[in-house]
Amino acid sequence: MNSTVKIGNIIIGRGYPVAVQSMTNTDTADYESTKTQLLALQSAGCDIARLAVTSMKEVEVCKKLVLSTTMPLVADIQFDYRLAVACADAGFAKIRFNPGNIGDESKVKKVVDACKANGIPIRVGVNSGSLDKDISAKYGFGADALAESVKKHVGLLEKFGFYDIVVSAKSSDVGTTVDTYRKLKSLGYVLHLGVTESGYSQAGIIKSAIGIGSLLVDGIGDTIRVSLTGDPLNEVYAAKNILKALGLEKNYCEIVSCPTCSRCKYDLEKIVAELTDYTENIKKPLKIAAMGCVVNGPGEARDADFGFAGGDNGTAVIFEKGKVVKRVDADEILPEIKRRIDEY
Amino acid sequence: MNSTVKIGNIIIGRGYPVAVQSMTNTDTADYESTKTQLLALQSAGCDIARLAVTSMKEVEVCKKLVLSTTMPLVADIQFDYRLAVACADAGFAKIRFNPGNIGDESKVKKVVDACKANGIPIRVGVNSGSLDKDISAKYGFGADALAESVKKHVGLLEKFGFYDIVVSAKSSDVGTTVDTYRKLKSLGYVLHLGVTESGYSQAGIIKSAIGIGSLLVDGIGDTIRVSLTGDPLNEVYAAKNILKALGLEKNYCEIVSCPTCSRCKYDLEKIVAELTDYTENIKKPLKIAAMGCVVNGPGEARDADFGFAGGDNGTAVIFEKGKVVKRVDADEILPEIKRRIDEY
Repeated sequence: MNSTVKIGNIIIGRGYPVAVQSMTNTDTADYESTKTQLLALQSAGCDIARLAVTSMKEVEVCKKLVLSTTMPLVADIQFDYRLAVACADAGFAKIRFNPGNIGDESKVKKVVDACKANGIPIRVGVNSGSLDKDISAKYGFGADALAESVKKHVGLLEKFGFYDIVVSAKSSDVGTTVDTYRKLKSLGYVLHLGVTESGYSQAGIIKSAIGIGSLLVDGIGDTIRVSLTGDPLNEVYAAKNILKALGLEKNYCEIVSCPTCSRCKYDLEKIVAELTDYTENIKKPLKIAAMGCVVNGPGEARDADFGFAGGDNGTAVIFEKGKVVKRVDADEILPEIKRRIDEY
Repeated sequence: MNSTVKIGNIIIGRGYPVAVQSMTNTDTADYESTKTQLLALQSAGCDIARLAVTSMKEVEVCKKLVLSTTMPLVADIQFDYRLAVACADAGFAKIRFNPGNIGDESKVKKVVDACKANGIPIRVGVNSGSLDKDISAKYGFGADALAESVKKHVGLLEKFGFYDIVVSAKSSDVGTTVDTYRKLKSLGYVLHLGVTESGYSQAGIIKSAIGIGSLLVDGIGDTIRVSLTGDPLNEVYAAKNILKALGLEKNYCEIVSCPTCSRCKYDLEKIVAELTDYTENIKKPLKIAAMGCVVNGPGEARDADFGFAGGDNGTAVIFEKGKVVKRVDADEILPEIKRRIDEY
């Protein structure tokens, strides 16, 4: 059992930062559009990207793609073990296969041998949609079935002397996903978290945030992939927000802002929207508190670097580390806070 | 200890559905705009709404507001116990006060007496920004401090023979929120969940989704409030999506859709976007699977009522309960699925 694995230039697992993954949805055979999407993903904060590879023709394109970016690439293989072998030889940094459809032991052995020869890890990517029949007959399709399927296929790799393993077992049901990974924790292998087919837009983001976040909050999970129908850049933005929400990504400007209520006598939302834009490129830890009234600030904002809270008659207070340092008119809040950001 | 409480016409607690709460951010003294916002919240799916009440003049307006909607209203009181007493007499269905700033025992006793006389519950709404000094001196500002503060103030209400209690203890830190409510579970009282000042836009939605969802997934929590800077309708939409993600709200059309990858040869996102709009008003359980290719469907979509998956050469399959029932061209998917929705 290896508690860390190396995927190209990135190490994931115990003691290492949680890595963000996504997947291209361009045609893998189309070098230019796939390269463009890979670079966009990397620049949005994606650490590792996966590509579906479905033909030997695509493997040839991938030989160039793996050289087109410094981001490690992972080949996603369904059905055909020969593609997995070819991808291991083509420069991919990891192979993901679905044990439910890769075929018998002799085929898995060939993939293992190719990955060993190339020094790259394998992700055993179990999916509730393609469980072995013997497992679903015995355990159904829930968390027990997913966990047993993982154990069976990890056991097979171990039998072949292969321990450089990442494990995933995704369900489109959030509760099942959480239960499954809690069961998998005891395996000790590196865990790749995700809710599969979580869907579209806000509903999908919330499904992924709960599934992934409920595990990360207990220290379960080493790398995450948010699955969203549509542009994969949205997956990376959501994944980064999940890491920020849990303090796993600290090098950014956090704006803690209250929902406002009748007590708030100025346009807090507008100020927060402007500050969100203004601070978007800050890459070190900064915490700003934006409070509608004195009920929440400065007390609630004790650990903010600085912040503001509205008062009566169009006034506001500016505070630093929980202490009021200045009184200003509400329309002076934004320039005052921007000035402090610039100084910072 | 009461494991359920009645808030107007809604019962929350053990065995009852998780209720969605939000809070107005209009000026409570402005009857028309507050009434308009309350009706909008109710129509978006809000079960219970809270209003900040800060003056006796506002209490007078609230006497009319509580009659303007069938949705139970909660008075949010900071600092002044006399407002809490007046609100209990004014027709509010619950009083929330912040024990950190309501004052000494004799004042709390007066609020308790007024709530008893009116047969309404109290929410003890502890907030990390306004902890008692003796508690923060001993426990700091983390989960232990929040939980101890709740216990102290619940104990005070119990001393006055009052058990009709809802408890909350919110932090703007997701991990602290989760730890705190896990500690509070053993109290047995009805729990109101939320991450306070969770912020703005997607970052705030994700913070709230993880904080609230991590607890609900373990059956902790009876009512939820998503806090977002801006229009409170967004809080209700996000709260509903949290409940849907966890299967706690079933009367809607769930669309399980894959993120697409190179294997997907048609415009799945466009179809999913159209289906999302088309099914938005369905109020009974329906599950539709939208899959890019046969890797995920129909296997992954075994429990969907019906769905579709792309195939080669611009074709697709339509399936029902995991069985392929029809082959169509990709551009016939949408009319075919809409027809099935209409029949359903």
